[in-house]
Amino acid sequence: MARTVDVAGLVDRALAGEPRAVARLISLVETASPVLPEVARALAPHTGRAWVVGLTGAPGVGKSTTTSALVGALRARGQRVGVLAVDPSSPFSGGALLGDRVRMGAHATDPGVFIRSMATRGHLGGLSWATPQALRVLDAAGCDVVLVETVGVGQSEVEVVSLADTVAVLIAPGSGDGVQAAKAGILEIADVFVVNKSDRDGADATARDLKHMISLGRRDRAPTWRPPVVKAVASSGVGVDAVVGALDAHLAWMVEHGERDRRRARRAAGEVEAIAVERVRSRFGGLRGGAALDVLAKRVVAGELDPYAAADLLVDGVG
Amino acid sequence: MARTVDVAGLVDRALAGEPRAVARLISLVETASPVLPEVARALAPHTGRAWVVGLTGAPGVGKSTTTSALVGALRARGQRVGVLAVDPSSPFSGGALLGDRVRMGAHATDPGVFIRSMATRGHLGGLSWATPQALRVLDAAGCDVVLVETVGVGQSEVEVVSLADTVAVLIAPGSGDGVQAAKAGILEIADVFVVNKSDRDGADATARDLKHMISLGRRDRAPTWRPPVVKAVASSGVGVDAVVGALDAHLAWMVEHGERDRRRARRAAGEVEAIAVERVRSRFGGLRGGAALDVLAKRVVAGELDPYAAADLLVDGVG
Repeated sequence: MARTVDVAGLVDRALAGEPRAVARLISLVETASPVLPEVARALAPHTGRAWVVGLTGAPGVGKSTTTSALVGALRARGQRVGVLAVDPSSPFSGGALLGDRVRMGAHATDPGVFIRSMATRGHLGGLSWATPQALRVLDAAGCDVVLVETVGVGQSEVEVVSLADTVAVLIAPGSGDGVQAAKAGILEIADVFVVNKSDRDGADATARDLKHMISLGRRDRAPTWRPPVVKAVASSGVGVDAVVGALDAHLAWMVEHGERDRRRARRAAGEVEAIAVERVRSRFGGLRGGAALDVLAKRVVAGELDPYAAADLLVDGVG
Repeated sequence: MARTVDVAGLVDRALAGEPRAVARLISLVETASPVLPEVARALAPHTGRAWVVGLTGAPGVGKSTTTSALVGALRARGQRVGVLAVDPSSPFSGGALLGDRVRMGAHATDPGVFIRSMATRGHLGGLSWATPQALRVLDAAGCDVVLVETVGVGQSEVEVVSLADTVAVLIAPGSGDGVQAAKAGILEIADVFVVNKSDRDGADATARDLKHMISLGRRDRAPTWRPPVVKAVASSGVGVDAVVGALDAHLAWMVEHGERDRRRARRAAGEVEAIAVERVRSRFGGLRGGAALDVLAKRVVAGELDPYAAADLLVDGVG
């Protein structure tokens, strides 16, 4: 782990699109390597091109299959595609469960596709901290589009919105009525709805419910984007072109209305803040911080100290 | 909003179990009132009794109904019960969608039950920051048990584990095979599995799959807790006593093995750290921080600055 990293060489090779260099850089992100600031500095001038599309939805809705179908459609029109599969990762194992990554096998040998799974390690700010940096790597490596797929449930579903230019939310027929969708907070994060597995019963009803909920929820006077609802069967390719068309339309709308720039500025602000917070937090855990936190926590459990007073002692001890 | 709060009086009334005072204190938590440190100090000596039970699961699995059924069972044996329904809350609305709160109506007039919904506002650390403090209020107000229910999908599903003494994960029959459960990272966070709506097809298969996955996942030599899988139909009350029995057994096991104290110390450490981070973060947003962050973010988007360098400028500007 302590071997030195030839950052300049690695970045040059990644900029040339060499898959192993890209993979290595993302590994550096994932392991929070101390050379990351150097990597980020070298990548910065080469970023800002990629269109980031987030895919989210409940487990079993077919996110991996849809991602794979979208990769095929985007490749067919000559775009370079990155796929970042973000794992919720148990706070205990820190590991990734990626049995279904094999479904992406068809694209695994295509040099125009980078596929990468990334565990967010369950720590606070995991996704918001690491994912934008991995996106930056794929962006600099020449990806025209990066698909960010959240795997399973977890803290990532809502956070993905802050990372993506365009968010596609996948819904399975009959998986929940409009109220469930509303409860999940997804009506407001979706730029495009995909009713996947729409050869199943209830697909039309689900699409209708979604459209109804969307029509209720949007009352702004300003010209706003109304999320289209597209039916698809990703496993057989039905409707995939329509999904791509809906995503394209959203990108065009964003560019026209300055929304893409706004989202990117917001994303960068979130990223900068997350790194800054992480830096401060690491000081809490450093040198005497870890032990101090444990001692303070025990006093809080015993009722001797309230958590605010404990936090003050922690911050003061750092400052 | 600027009116002064009689913290001492409010806390005294909450300690006496007065519902309006409890509600008011939780509102102070939710709105991040500046008097919270004072509240926390006054509550500290009266905390540490309540058993915190987290309930989680995918939308539509029946969390609200199960929570309501558990309240009934716990009340029947004379325990005071708090219910905290935590909303994922869209980052855009900041609001709570609680149409189904009405299902708790049966308990709404019971003086031995506190029911409270809380939006976590979608900000980083939302749940981890606010929920433990609301738990502290309910604990000090004399709740023997506090049920924490996460509403819908979102960042809260996995985080709830860090808040609870005991975590119950609800699964619907046929809602996903073992692989989906594993993908969701729930095998490792569950202390008790409840196969709800078990009058539906596939309940036995789902329970069997879960037991199989559990048997595969636990290979530790140390005496460990093996999560029981309980079938229930919360809406009709079937199996609810068995769920309570499983939860009780987990509590007894925790106490016997010192696990409850370990979880509480971990929870307090997380809480102290979250407050400390929030304090530091608020400095980023204060005075010149907000504008500074926006300016830095724009420079990052333009590729003039990398996010690490921007974070350093932000932290240095604060320090």
